[in-house]
Amino acid sequence: MDDKLNILDLNALDQRHLEHLDPETRDLVLRRHHTLGADSPLFYREPLHLVRGRGPWLYDARDRAYLDCYNNVASVGHCHPHVVAAIAREAGTLAVNSRYLYDILYAYAEKLLATMPQTLTRLAMTCTGSESVDLALRITRHYTQASGIIVTSHAYHGNTTAVAEISPSSGLAVPIGQHVRTVPAPDSYLNPGGDVGARFAADVRAAIAQLQRHGIKFAGMIVDSVFSSDGIFTEPQGFLCEAVDAVRAAGGLYIADEVQPGFGRTGAAMWGFLRHGLSPDIVVMGKPMGNGYPVAGVVTRPEILQDFARNCGYFNTFGGNPVAAAAAMAVLEVIEGEGLVANAQAMGTRLLAGLETLKSRHACIGDVRGAGLFVGVEFSTPGGTEPDREITSRVVNGLRERGVLIGTAGPHGNVLKIRPPLCIAAEEVDLLVTRLGEVLDQER
Amino acid sequence: MDDKLNILDLNALDQRHLEHLDPETRDLVLRRHHTLGADSPLFYREPLHLVRGRGPWLYDARDRAYLDCYNNVASVGHCHPHVVAAIAREAGTLAVNSRYLYDILYAYAEKLLATMPQTLTRLAMTCTGSESVDLALRITRHYTQASGIIVTSHAYHGNTTAVAEISPSSGLAVPIGQHVRTVPAPDSYLNPGGDVGARFAADVRAAIAQLQRHGIKFAGMIVDSVFSSDGIFTEPQGFLCEAVDAVRAAGGLYIADEVQPGFGRTGAAMWGFLRHGLSPDIVVMGKPMGNGYPVAGVVTRPEILQDFARNCGYFNTFGGNPVAAAAAMAVLEVIEGEGLVANAQAMGTRLLAGLETLKSRHACIGDVRGAGLFVGVEFSTPGGTEPDREITSRVVNGLRERGVLIGTAGPHGNVLKIRPPLCIAAEEVDLLVTRLGEVLDQER
Repeated sequence: MDDKLNILDLNALDQRHLEHLDPETRDLVLRRHHTLGADSPLFYREPLHLVRGRGPWLYDARDRAYLDCYNNVASVGHCHPHVVAAIAREAGTLAVNSRYLYDILYAYAEKLLATMPQTLTRLAMTCTGSESVDLALRITRHYTQASGIIVTSHAYHGNTTAVAEISPSSGLAVPIGQHVRTVPAPDSYLNPGGDVGARFAADVRAAIAQLQRHGIKFAGMIVDSVFSSDGIFTEPQGFLCEAVDAVRAAGGLYIADEVQPGFGRTGAAMWGFLRHGLSPDIVVMGKPMGNGYPVAGVVTRPEILQDFARNCGYFNTFGGNPVAAAAAMAVLEVIEGEGLVANAQAMGTRLLAGLETLKSRHACIGDVRGAGLFVGVEFSTPGGTEPDREITSRVVNGLRERGVLIGTAGPHGNVLKIRPPLCIAAEEVDLLVTRLGEVLDQER
Repeated sequence: MDDKLNILDLNALDQRHLEHLDPETRDLVLRRHHTLGADSPLFYREPLHLVRGRGPWLYDARDRAYLDCYNNVASVGHCHPHVVAAIAREAGTLAVNSRYLYDILYAYAEKLLATMPQTLTRLAMTCTGSESVDLALRITRHYTQASGIIVTSHAYHGNTTAVAEISPSSGLAVPIGQHVRTVPAPDSYLNPGGDVGARFAADVRAAIAQLQRHGIKFAGMIVDSVFSSDGIFTEPQGFLCEAVDAVRAAGGLYIADEVQPGFGRTGAAMWGFLRHGLSPDIVVMGKPMGNGYPVAGVVTRPEILQDFARNCGYFNTFGGNPVAAAAAMAVLEVIEGEGLVANAQAMGTRLLAGLETLKSRHACIGDVRGAGLFVGVEFSTPGGTEPDREITSRVVNGLRERGVLIGTAGPHGNVLKIRPPLCIAAEEVDLLVTRLGEVLDQER
């Protein structure tokens, strides 16, 4: 059962619940069923009809406010005026493709690349995280002339054919590629004691050996440095270094999937890998890059990109268009101008402290962990570590009723995934903790 | 040599030309080289630095106007105020993902699906044409439990790993998939006489048989009804019907790639397949759908989508977000409100007539063909049909010098690809013909 869990379906609308919805919401759901289909994923037992957003707040059709602690896209705040103005201005000025020259794309690339380790000086623009991971796989395969890929056992990297094959969390109906091997995520809660980094590296070495034994040449490892889909693992800093050394020793590339931890979310730095003191061979990014505008990218070393670009070519019609570049530039300006990396660090520390207090009062909380504003709360059987998925689902839906939006992560769906916009304020963090406490009090 | 031709590189900047550029343009090119890399594709021997667009016109840094007869994205006109206003309004109101309820996505889906054949009642939203084709392949594979795909021999369907494998025009460094078979496009110019549709169908039947002989179960055929990358073939109407019958008789699906001919471009109807009286099993769309905003989609029958959606799941973070839906809705409203399908038909007829006149005066023009505002001009050796790539390249660059932008198509790069915005006016069509005539006069 757990193996078949799709990361998307945990809090999906129960069809039997349809008749209990208010007429307006039911009408929307039915229109949705008749156009997108009844199996198109929808959040919550009682789905949420949204009409506007501002800062960390979303508002429903009755103007009720919800504190958004889930959506890692509108990362500088919903409908941030600086980003909206940039999109409106550029959409009204020039919207062509990158085979023409225009200044803003290079200005953006320069500003983005300045946040990267020195060796990473090339950017390819795409529209989505999935496109970025797919492109990174194509580049890696071409550069290494190899196909073997290592991912964690409940990873999610995206939705194209090739990327679904390296996303085990997509469920049993989506086969993992024959060229793919999985390793357990560096889970220090369920596997305490010992050196989590050394254990992870040993698993990676074993996976490389297994690929070689099957005659599959090793190309590289792709991981998200917060292991979001696996259940959010962030400590100790540096736990990835030994595994990355092993990857490189075997001739593979280390691909950092920064779609989730990137753009300051971990509080320690602009990029999740920097928190671990790493310099990847390829970095893929997406979600918060344009605060909602579809823009994503791949950053790498010139020698890795060059042969692929020369021989295979890559052109993305919408990728890096002037509006995308303007939106992405505005996001960098807001992160810098409003000090959002530092705020993520400060508010993340405050949030973790509040959650630790709840943990001391509620035995169902097995673990609290995170970096900056990427935080996990793991629910387990009191006194043990058995995953408690049911309580997690009740908490997510209970918080929705109390005006707070969060999601879940992990192979057993028993980890709260908390990712508020980076602009969240102290009183909003406290509100989240208070509401979570209220829901947990009801569980007693 | 021709086999290695990448569709993107024909008119690329020659590196040796760099020193002849004006200082400002050279500076931009160098900034581009230092960020995107020197192999990132760029148009024209002398690249074009654009600063704004309006209607069918683009303007360079010196405010020189260029008539855009190439870009099949800003299809209702560059920076159309109605589309820009919709993007600005919705970006400032709500930009979340489709797992929440919001009205505009369903309103858009209803309006879009109303333009489709009756059986096609389900829409999945993505961000790019490549994502749409990739998703269509995943759905097809799941529904047919088969992998064999037929494409034309110089097709281009996109840039993901799986889609590059069905895009032979991507060049020799990008292998065609082992589960893919190619058939010649229905070319009535180089293969005159006989029934072009019957010939195409015979080739498709042979390809199906070959797949079966290799133990590869046949899944379907994907073609673009104007065969854009193969060289633009549009006549006679209905030439695809017999091949589609053969595909279905063998249990395969017919996937219509409408990224190029869709949204009214062929003048006869909203969709290229309607011109041939066909009803596809799956339709993929992209480029002009949001007039530059990254939005794309897949339309199919409920029974084809249902199993895939239920078992494999598909969620696209940016796909169908409120801003994308608003932009796409505005595009449909402009197409309808300004009568752009009829204008494409009328202006296309005018353009073909003008080009026929040029053909009668210039022996280098071997053929003129097209539907609506998707028009090809094939250059051949005078008196013969040998492709003349050199003159085509000179014409494209000569027109750029005279303020008209067009591109090329076909395996030999000897077909002018003419696709002005659907809002082009009669005097602008005449200007294009006049300028082309001037360039050809210089060739004498």
